[in-house]
Parts: sequence; structure tokens; C-alpha cells
Amino acid sequence: MGNEKYTIGVDFGTESGRAVVVRVSDGQELGSAVHPYGDSVIDERLPGSNKPLPPEWALQNPDDYIAVFKNAVPAAVRASGIDPADVIGIGVDFTACTMMPTLADGTPLMRLPEFRDNPHAWVKLWKHHAAQPEADQINATARAMGEGWLARYGGKISSEWFFSKALQILDEAPEVYRAADRLIEAADWVIWQLSGNETRNTCTAGYKAIYQDGSFPGREYFAALHPALADVVDTKMKRELDPLGGLAGGLTEEAAGWTGLQPGIAVAVANVDAHVTVPAAQVVEPGRMVMIMGTSTCHMVMGDSLHEVPGMCGVVDGGIIPGLYGYEAGQSGVGDIFAWFVDNAVPPEYHAAAQAKGMDLHAYLEAEAAQQKPGEHGLLALDWWNGNRSVLVDVDLSGLLIGATLATRAPDIYRALIESTAYGTRLIIETFEQHGVPIKDLVAAGGLPEKNRLMMQIYADVTGRNFSVIRSNQGPAVGSAMHAAVAAGAYPDIQAAAEKMGGLRDEVYRPIPENQAVYDRLYTEYVTLHDYFGRGENDVMKRLRAIRNEARGVE
Amino acid sequence: MGNEKYTIGVDFGTESGRAVVVRVSDGQELGSAVHPYGDSVIDERLPGSNKPLPPEWALQNPDDYIAVFKNAVPAAVRASGIDPADVIGIGVDFTACTMMPTLADGTPLMRLPEFRDNPHAWVKLWKHHAAQPEADQINATARAMGEGWLARYGGKISSEWFFSKALQILDEAPEVYRAADRLIEAADWVIWQLSGNETRNTCTAGYKAIYQDGSFPGREYFAALHPALADVVDTKMKRELDPLGGLAGGLTEEAAGWTGLQPGIAVAVANVDAHVTVPAAQVVEPGRMVMIMGTSTCHMVMGDSLHEVPGMCGVVDGGIIPGLYGYEAGQSGVGDIFAWFVDNAVPPEYHAAAQAKGMDLHAYLEAEAAQQKPGEHGLLALDWWNGNRSVLVDVDLSGLLIGATLATRAPDIYRALIESTAYGTRLIIETFEQHGVPIKDLVAAGGLPEKNRLMMQIYADVTGRNFSVIRSNQGPAVGSAMHAAVAAGAYPDIQAAAEKMGGLRDEVYRPIPENQAVYDRLYTEYVTLHDYFGRGENDVMKRLRAIRNEARGVE
Repeated sequence: MGNEKYTIGVDFGTESGRAVVVRVSDGQELGSAVHPYGDSVIDERLPGSNKPLPPEWALQNPDDYIAVFKNAVPAAVRASGIDPADVIGIGVDFTACTMMPTLADGTPLMRLPEFRDNPHAWVKLWKHHAAQPEADQINATARAMGEGWLARYGGKISSEWFFSKALQILDEAPEVYRAADRLIEAADWVIWQLSGNETRNTCTAGYKAIYQDGSFPGREYFAALHPALADVVDTKMKRELDPLGGLAGGLTEEAAGWTGLQPGIAVAVANVDAHVTVPAAQVVEPGRMVMIMGTSTCHMVMGDSLHEVPGMCGVVDGGIIPGLYGYEAGQSGVGDIFAWFVDNAVPPEYHAAAQAKGMDLHAYLEAEAAQQKPGEHGLLALDWWNGNRSVLVDVDLSGLLIGATLATRAPDIYRALIESTAYGTRLIIETFEQHGVPIKDLVAAGGLPEKNRLMMQIYADVTGRNFSVIRSNQGPAVGSAMHAAVAAGAYPDIQAAAEKMGGLRDEVYRPIPENQAVYDRLYTEYVTLHDYFGRGENDVMKRLRAIRNEARGVE
Repeated sequence: MGNEKYTIGVDFGTESGRAVVVRVSDGQELGSAVHPYGDSVIDERLPGSNKPLPPEWALQNPDDYIAVFKNAVPAAVRASGIDPADVIGIGVDFTACTMMPTLADGTPLMRLPEFRDNPHAWVKLWKHHAAQPEADQINATARAMGEGWLARYGGKISSEWFFSKALQILDEAPEVYRAADRLIEAADWVIWQLSGNETRNTCTAGYKAIYQDGSFPGREYFAALHPALADVVDTKMKRELDPLGGLAGGLTEEAAGWTGLQPGIAVAVANVDAHVTVPAAQVVEPGRMVMIMGTSTCHMVMGDSLHEVPGMCGVVDGGIIPGLYGYEAGQSGVGDIFAWFVDNAVPPEYHAAAQAKGMDLHAYLEAEAAQQKPGEHGLLALDWWNGNRSVLVDVDLSGLLIGATLATRAPDIYRALIESTAYGTRLIIETFEQHGVPIKDLVAAGGLPEKNRLMMQIYADVTGRNFSVIRSNQGPAVGSAMHAAVAAGAYPDIQAAAEKMGGLRDEVYRPIPENQAVYDRLYTEYVTLHDYFGRGENDVMKRLRAIRNEARGVE
């Protein structure tokens, strides 16, 4: 055992950071620790300020990320019982696009007294949604100028992404924009803090900052958005990218002090939480779709060649695994919809029955729903409670339930909602396949799969594909640790690391032919309604939203 | 006060009979009593039998009706404190079509030992739904033979109605059919028991037994249904009709013994619960629609002339008020839908909050929903949880909710469901008007209006019409007492009786223009979805039901 080496993966989530100690030889997880961010999600007012933030804002404090290195990493090492001297590397994954303005040396602008009270000097978290006007301008301008990269993002750049947020800073706080020597992903910033080197990972650059075919959008395009934005790439960003699994540098003395690790060990180039999970599920080849299933679902699949698929989130060369095109799609509401239902539409008798059996209500409803045959409840839903990401890319769509009768009960609706998200996934799969990206089987990761066996079987039945589950419950951190092992030279590439350190559970959910036959019929109905309400034939959902907004007095 | 005279109205409902003592001079209700039927609704097995009834059956025991005369009438008289000698007449209303086979003297076949165990010898209650195959045959044969009367019933005869039930007896129990000298509405049968005279009221004959333009369907039509049915009208029914408010005869000695009333007092021709409520609401002229709002809604309106309106339940000459055409339409789910929601889709926090305020949950949700502006919840529903009666006449349609988001809460859906039933009523009103039956204002009766002020206002806003409420909570019984007063000669006609004995409350719900403007837009969306899902453009609801039935293994 004395020869065993370890790497540490640090997964920066929305509320906290998690460090996991992983054995390099076989991916065994030996210890982990979580550190919540002191300022959490800043969406009401800046720390120490009484001034309310506008709606849709979501900020973070970058010093909370450093605190994760100082607290979660040593705690994970302690919990693992290993000798810190046997740790050969550290890697991170992050939410994205989570970005911030800094000085040339990486100092966050919010640390400067003159900018402390300016919300634009803080980290803009992925779910900061206040840059929608800028996103609208980015999309309109790209369409007007015929920018070819737009199709690589399903035809629409999100308000969550890098240039939407950068342009909002410029529009609303030009003094912050001027003072910023760097606009940088928090993922890359924390690696800078660990290694002393500024890097720019291919994943966030490609998926969030419109890096395509070897370059960012051109100067003319940025100038058309705003004259002062013309040179944003050359003046505010690192133009060269660094591959996933690459070595950012050695751990600095200061960072060694924070973490209790040895100075000089490998620090890997940063990654994104969803994307880094793919090799952790041992998926390193084309045709296997990894689904990170939580409140929403991210669909990740790789291909040998480049295709433009309508409604996908993005396609990035080397965005998941170096040497392959990484495709991403998404459903904007999945676990969120189930949670909405359980919290808002289940009568007391089911709460009481679940409690009497010592089950949580999700599990109880699932057990009840699992007794039904496909189609038995007579219901069909459109899974748009939180809008539609792929393939319609339309936040103004809303949820629909059809087929209700006086005999409809809570487990019926619960099952119909699960099924609706499975239909949504099937439609994404079929769209990929129709546009040249084959998908032969599915792998689940994230929080939902473990607790929802019925959901897993329904997805297998609806999509007609085998559905496996990642071995680790901490997929992102394990994936980050794998990239650290590659950066440390323990493996030649992420494929080799995945073979040894990644893994799937033994159980595979396989389609049941008689269920498939019924779901094929129901899916046909889903597609008809999807297209009727989603593709312009009847825009009632948008009109209902407009009427709602008028009634509420909002734009 | 010694000169005051009284009549008694007896309202035969689904579970019980209610007697009310009413002052002839002004309609004041002086006492009432309810007597539950001993055998209630017989839908599992006949009394004294172990043999289960098939699904969809619903029978009653005619002796339970006599028990109402024996118990509720004397109790109501006692409660009123009047002298029974001052009662000058008695009238009844009944559920319909509720029918039974009897001998020539009125003896129910179920009283004969040889038929006691035959369920076809008992009363078939209005909600006996096992005659659907017979209804299908009645409709198909009528269409094939071009029967003109079909259009008087919105193009479809219901399985609940007279000849569907009669044909089921013939199909399934020909020995009962042969032994029956009479097939008779329970309404007419109880009047026979009170007066000794067989009468046939225009209301049930017209709405339930296809009496149109002075005759029943012809011998050839009945023969086409079944050779043995050819002479059903001449051999099993009274061919001559009796007008509403007509005198059936004097109270017999025997019935005087049951009721404690004087023999010889006027017994009025029978009526139907919904229809008799119209004059009780002081509505005796064309253009005012009375809505009996309970689990479902009956819409009653009168016209000077005959029009065929798509999807109405029926139009009958003198079917509500002698001398006018009585039109009936209906929504098959109203209060039922609200009750479904409250019982099946409201989370515990609302139950607890209602309890803390000492409110019932309906009232609590209504109070919450009443704080919203029209359109504020962003939802729209199709009110088809129990199918659609008017104007689509389609039991296979089902409920739809659109516009749900993660922010949708129970009061939002509750309000949307109320609104959906209001849109359904507006569509009925517009269909009437488009086909020559004007509707200038609305009057509510039944159980819902009193408890649901928000509902009343929404209906006014959605329909753009003033909405009044009947004065009495016992509208059917008061209406029956009014007809008894006419039969007794206290008033020359029901119009005169209504002026003195009927009434509305002072409060009128009036449309609020700014609400109307929003509801006009939402109603347009409702109509689009109504037609898309209800008129064949997308029959997904029927396909979902077919898949459901296959999954359940039912036809």
C-alpha cells in the first residue's frame, strides 16, 4: 500500500465546494469533505450592504472558493487517512459560466476598496440571469451578421454565458469593465490561484465563450455589439486554450499552505462539473450519451465529426475529451418538476401514508406509480415547467397536462411527469441522430438516478436504449481527480485514466419490449403536442405568459 | 293569518327526498324535512341478494319514494307549525330519466315475487350507465334512418335516457319487458300513487323520451331497433301528455293517510328537479338562462321559437314553461372538478392554513385565488375532467391544464379551473345565440353559487352578463310547491305563481370591464384549444383513453 498514489478532485457547486481523495490505481474514493460558501449565493444584497440587488442577479464571493481549498481539502485528506505526501495532483471542476473581473495578477476587483460596493466587480454565478438584454443583442447581431458559430449553439447564446455577462458589465458598469485586465471563468481563476499560472480550459471557452474552429468571434462582431468591446479577447482574455487533463503548473507554496499538500504537485487545467463527469462514467468514446440528472438534465455525447444539431447547447472540439467533438444538450426542468409536484400538488393522505411507511414522499409515489402499466393513467404531459432548453431553446414555454379525469390521482400525475421528461430526452436523442450524431446507449449520473429506479426503467423503455448508472456518487470530483492524475503523468491520457479510475454499476436498465410498444404510441402523441405548442402552430403559452406579465405589471 | 294557504313541494333527489311547506301568497318557506332512501343508490347488489350487479348499474327501490311521502311530508308540516288542513296542493320534482316497469295498475314489477331478484324489475336511476350499447344503437339507427328529432337533442341520445334503458330491459330481460304493462318515469309513478291517475308530464317526455312535434318516434323506427319494441309507445306508455302545472287529480284517501294531508287536495303533474327550479327563480320569459350549478351544471333557457342548437341536451315545447320552447344544455363537470382538485391536488400546507382559520378548504383557496387579477396565474384549463356534454357531446374528452411553471401554486390552479368552467358556459351561451336563442342575463341556482362568490364574479366577467342568484336554497321543492299552487287553482298559471312565490336575491354580480377585457383574450385561447382537442384536429384525448383502456384490459 505504500506505493499507492492519490489525487484530489474539487467540485465547486452552487452552494459549496466538495473535495474527494481518489486512489490513482483504481479510482477508489477514500475520503471527502464539503465546505459551504460563507456568502453562498448573493442574490439579495452584497455582504455588508443594504442596497438590494435587482431581480435575476446571482453573485458569489471568490474568497469563498479559496476557503474550500483551505478547509475541504485538508478535511478530505484527514478523512481518508492517507499521507498527504502521497497526493500527486489536484484538479477542479466548476459551475459555468461563472465569471469575474480581475487585475492582471488575478486579484478580483471586488477585493479593491473602490469596487467593493459595486456588484459588477463580484463573481457572476452561472444562474445570474440579468444579462438577458445583452444575450438578445448578441443573438440578434449574430443573426444579422451571419455569424457561422451561432449554429454551433443551437442557434441561441444564453444569458448565462460569458459574453452576455461581459457585455452587461460594460453596459452597466463601464468603470469596472475598464479596470478589469481580465474577464475570467472562476474555474480558470481558482487554477490560477493554485498554480500561479493563468490558463483557459477548452471546455468553458468552447461552450460558454464562443471559441470555435480555433478562434473567438471577430473584432468586427464585438465592435458591432459595443465599440468598447471590440478588443475584448485581446485585452481582457487569454487567447490560447489549454486542453482538459493538461498541466496548469505545480502547486504554489501558498496553495500548499492552504491545502496541506506538497508544493509542486500537478495542478490540472480546470473543467466543468457536467463535462468532467463523462470520463468518470468511463465514457470516452462516441455514441454513449451521459446524462447528468438533477434539477435539470445535461446530455453529453461525443462524436468523431462535427455536425450542427438544432437546439443543442453547444458542440466543442475537445470540449469533453481531447480529440473528439463534445456535444451538449439539456432539459431545463427534470428533478425540479418532480419536486414541484411533490411540494405543491400532493394531498395530505399521501404524505401521511409515506410517513407511516417511513418513506420519503418521492419514494412512496414512485412505488405507487410503479404498479401501473405504461399508459394506464391515461395522461400525457409536456415537460416544460421550467421552459425548454433542447431542442426548442425557448424559456417562455410552460407545462401542460392532458388526459385528467375525476379518477386521476397523485401517482398517476407523478408517473406522467417522469414520462414527459423521458419523452423530452428521446426527442433530443432523435434530433442528434437525425443530424449525424449516433447515440447507442445511455449512462446516468447526478442525484436523481440512484433514488429513482422507476424513472430509470421508464427512460430505457421510452428511448429503447440500455441505461447504465455511473459508479460514483461524486462523479464530478472523481472526474476532476482523474484529470489531475493525467496532469501528474500517472496516465498518458484521460482514456487510460477512465479505464482504471472510472466506472459503472453492474446493473443496466434494459428496454422491455411490451412497454416500448406502448411508449412508442405515447411518444408520437408527445411529439405532436411538442410541435403544436413549441414550433409556432399555437403560441398560446407565450400569450398566456404575456397576459400574466401584464397582470403582474412586469415587462 | 287564518286565511293563508300552503302547498307542499317534494324534491326527489339521488339519495333522499325533501319536503318543503311553502306559503302560497308569497313563497315563504315555513318548514322542511328530509328522508333518506332506505336502499339509497343500489349499485353493488340487490337488497337481500349476494349477486353483484354489473359495473355502471344504478337502481332504486320505489318503496323508498313512498316512504318520503310517509315521513318527510308530515315532518315538514310539523316543522312549519301550520294546520295540515290549510295545505291545498302537493307537487313533486324528480331526478330524470329515472324509470321503472310496472303492471297496468302501477304495481312495480320488483314487488312481484317472481321478479324480486331480477334487477331489471327495479327502478333504473338517472345515473344508471349500463345502457350505452343501446344508446349507441339508438343513435346509429336514427342517423341511418334520418330521424329528424335527433337534432333536437344536440345530435345524440344519452345512455341515461328513457329508450336506452327500455331497450336494455328488452335486450337483457325480455321476460321483464313482456310482463311490464307500463314503462314509466318515477316522477309520473309517484304522482300516480298520490292521485290514483296515470299522467305523463311534458318535461320528461320531451327531454328524455323523444316526444317532439306532438309524437314519439314512429313504429318503423322502434321496429328497426328491435322487433319487439315496435309498439312500445302504444302498449307500454301513456301517449297523451300532461302540461306542467296541470292537475293530475285529487289526493287519494290512501295517500292522505301517508301524508297527513286532506284527501282530495290538488296533486300537480310531475316535473324534473332542474326544470322546476326555473320559475322558482322567477324566470318565466325568454332570454334569461338559469344555471343549476352543482357537481355539474344544467343550463336552462326559454325561447319563443324553435331552433336546433348543436350540442344542447334538448329543446322541448312546454318543457319548462307551458307555451315556450325550453332549451337545456349542460356541463358534465363543474363542482365535481373543484372537488376533485381540493381532494386530490392540494398540499398539506393549505389544509393546515384553512384549518387554522376555521375555513373549509374550498373557501380558503377561493380567498387566496380572489386576490389575483385575471390572467395573473398564467394558466388555462379545458373543463373536461368528466367529459364534455354541451356543445361537443363527447364523454371521451378529458381535462387539460396548460401554462404551469415551477412557481404555480394550488390557488392558481383552483382559479384556473373555475375560469375553465366559465369559459365552457360562455361557449354554450354563444352557441345558443349563434343559433337564434338570445341570452341576455344569467341566474344561478343549486349548491355552488352561495358558497362561491369568486366563481360568480368570474362567470359575470367571462360571459359579460349580469349574474343573479335564486332566493331559495331549496329551489326545486319551492318550484314544485308553485306548480301545486297552480294545479290547486291559486294562480291561473305558473307565470303568476312565479311572480308571487319565486324570487331572486338582491345582489347581482355585474361584469367588471377591465376583467372582461382580459377574459376576452383568454376565452379566445380557450376556444382555440377547445376546437383543436374537441373537434377532431387532434384526437389525442381519445387515443390516450384507448391506450388507458387497453392497459387496464377493458373495452
